[in-house]
Amino acid sequence: MLIDRLIDNILKLNNPTAVGLDTCLEYLPQDMLKGVKDFKDAADKIIEFNKAITDNIADIVPSVKIQVAYYEMYGVEGMRAFKDTVDYAKKCGFITIADVKRNDIGSTAKCYSDAYIGKTSIAGVKKPVFDADFLTVNAYLGYDGIKPFAEDCKEYDKGLFALVKTSNPSGGEIQDLICQDGQKVYEKMGSLVMDWGKNLIGKYGYSNIGAVVGATYSEEAKALREKLKSVFFLIPGYGAQGGTAKDLAVCFKDGIGGVVNSSRAILTAYKNPKYSEFNYYQAARKAAIDMKEDLQRALSL
Amino acid sequence: MLIDRLIDNILKLNNPTAVGLDTCLEYLPQDMLKGVKDFKDAADKIIEFNKAITDNIADIVPSVKIQVAYYEMYGVEGMRAFKDTVDYAKKCGFITIADVKRNDIGSTAKCYSDAYIGKTSIAGVKKPVFDADFLTVNAYLGYDGIKPFAEDCKEYDKGLFALVKTSNPSGGEIQDLICQDGQKVYEKMGSLVMDWGKNLIGKYGYSNIGAVVGATYSEEAKALREKLKSVFFLIPGYGAQGGTAKDLAVCFKDGIGGVVNSSRAILTAYKNPKYSEFNYYQAARKAAIDMKEDLQRALSL
Repeated sequence: MLIDRLIDNILKLNNPTAVGLDTCLEYLPQDMLKGVKDFKDAADKIIEFNKAITDNIADIVPSVKIQVAYYEMYGVEGMRAFKDTVDYAKKCGFITIADVKRNDIGSTAKCYSDAYIGKTSIAGVKKPVFDADFLTVNAYLGYDGIKPFAEDCKEYDKGLFALVKTSNPSGGEIQDLICQDGQKVYEKMGSLVMDWGKNLIGKYGYSNIGAVVGATYSEEAKALREKLKSVFFLIPGYGAQGGTAKDLAVCFKDGIGGVVNSSRAILTAYKNPKYSEFNYYQAARKAAIDMKEDLQRALSL
Repeated sequence: MLIDRLIDNILKLNNPTAVGLDTCLEYLPQDMLKGVKDFKDAADKIIEFNKAITDNIADIVPSVKIQVAYYEMYGVEGMRAFKDTVDYAKKCGFITIADVKRNDIGSTAKCYSDAYIGKTSIAGVKKPVFDADFLTVNAYLGYDGIKPFAEDCKEYDKGLFALVKTSNPSGGEIQDLICQDGQKVYEKMGSLVMDWGKNLIGKYGYSNIGAVVGATYSEEAKALREKLKSVFFLIPGYGAQGGTAKDLAVCFKDGIGGVVNSSRAILTAYKNPKYSEFNYYQAARKAAIDMKEDLQRALSL
């Protein structure tokens, strides 16, 4: 099962990290930007950058998270870069997470599911499209908008992470509303997510259907970990957003329970004085190693 | 202002409709599918179909809503069809709504905003990308995930519709949760959306920042109309999903207040025995006229 393969990768490398390939032109070294004048050039350079990064972390990092917004901003050519990045990351052995936060009513959610984890029918033949391992979803529309994804998770052994408690400052405007029974909206969401995944649980006790829980809200994350025993966490907010390894340690039990994302701090490590002696992909590797060691200390791995 | 131009179009054509170009291969006539064997063929045929539909309704329908999931399912080629469809619809004079339901933390939401309503910087030059008039968003992450869109709405005179009360059966799992003060989550969301749009209000008293309110929940829609006086509604759920013109009439005051979406019932009208004497684009036109007349009766236009 996918969730077992992700956890096996994490245990093998002793590193619960998902490096975020949220690559925009501004993150690229100046000398790579020479002559870039249109979306096609931008996409080509982003692919080149991503390949160099993934080549240089494949032996130390188990998974990558590709934020599709950073590709959509370059239009059709950007989506080509997204596809090439997912394909290349899979070839390198990473578990891939398409961070797309898709959501809609059932019939439309089915199209999104076809696109990111399922298959699209052409002349009676089912063809994979972007074909990531996991995708992220937003479940504000409830279960009938999640069901097509959950069905593809089962059919194709794929996974999803649904937003529960996000890492951003104003996440609480809706998520922290207190319901009549005293529970907050994100707690209700968490319970729904656990329920949706109860038939997709692997050998470690975690489901292919996981939750996004931000590193920036440590107390809330701790309570969610206690309650949502079979829900694996995708944990954003480490580093650039202010979450520390200590903050997010509460998401883990016996060394497993989540995968921690870092994007900018790895991709643009070469701009950090700490790594100034390295080129961009060497700096990314060093930063990934530093992150791994930081997590290992905090989680006593 | 965009919202004024949309309302002007609606009043001129006496028709508050957004035809949904949610085009998948299965909606196309059999004879168009001959020889279609890959995503490129699929995209080409979808563009041809969409152009014929838009050509044949441009004089009676003020706006189109393009559901991006139906294009993403055909991968990179599908996104080309999405772009061509938006471009062509704008040329035909439609107000275009990119139904993308995007959502993320601020820095990532900025990328989505660049992609759909704003501009992306390449070598210091800002270029429009998919460049629709409106987009739809999901505000589960609160205002910092909406702010980049709101800023582009102001800078480029664009608009957004945020999900408030969706049309699908399980929308209530989260949206209908009752908070401690007795208000439901979707009511809280509605108030936030009104607040976010208060500086973007046009001559009719409506804001460029609107809300998605389903035709299938008439009582809730009525209460939202009373309360959210400056919020224009995008109204899905008419027809195929079971909402009637009478159900959604509550979303209007003095003949304005919303735009009603219909997708499948128009695109696949040629499969309806009622329109069997027509080809697909003539049938779409007839169905659009029937919808217009149905809305006119219910809204006393």
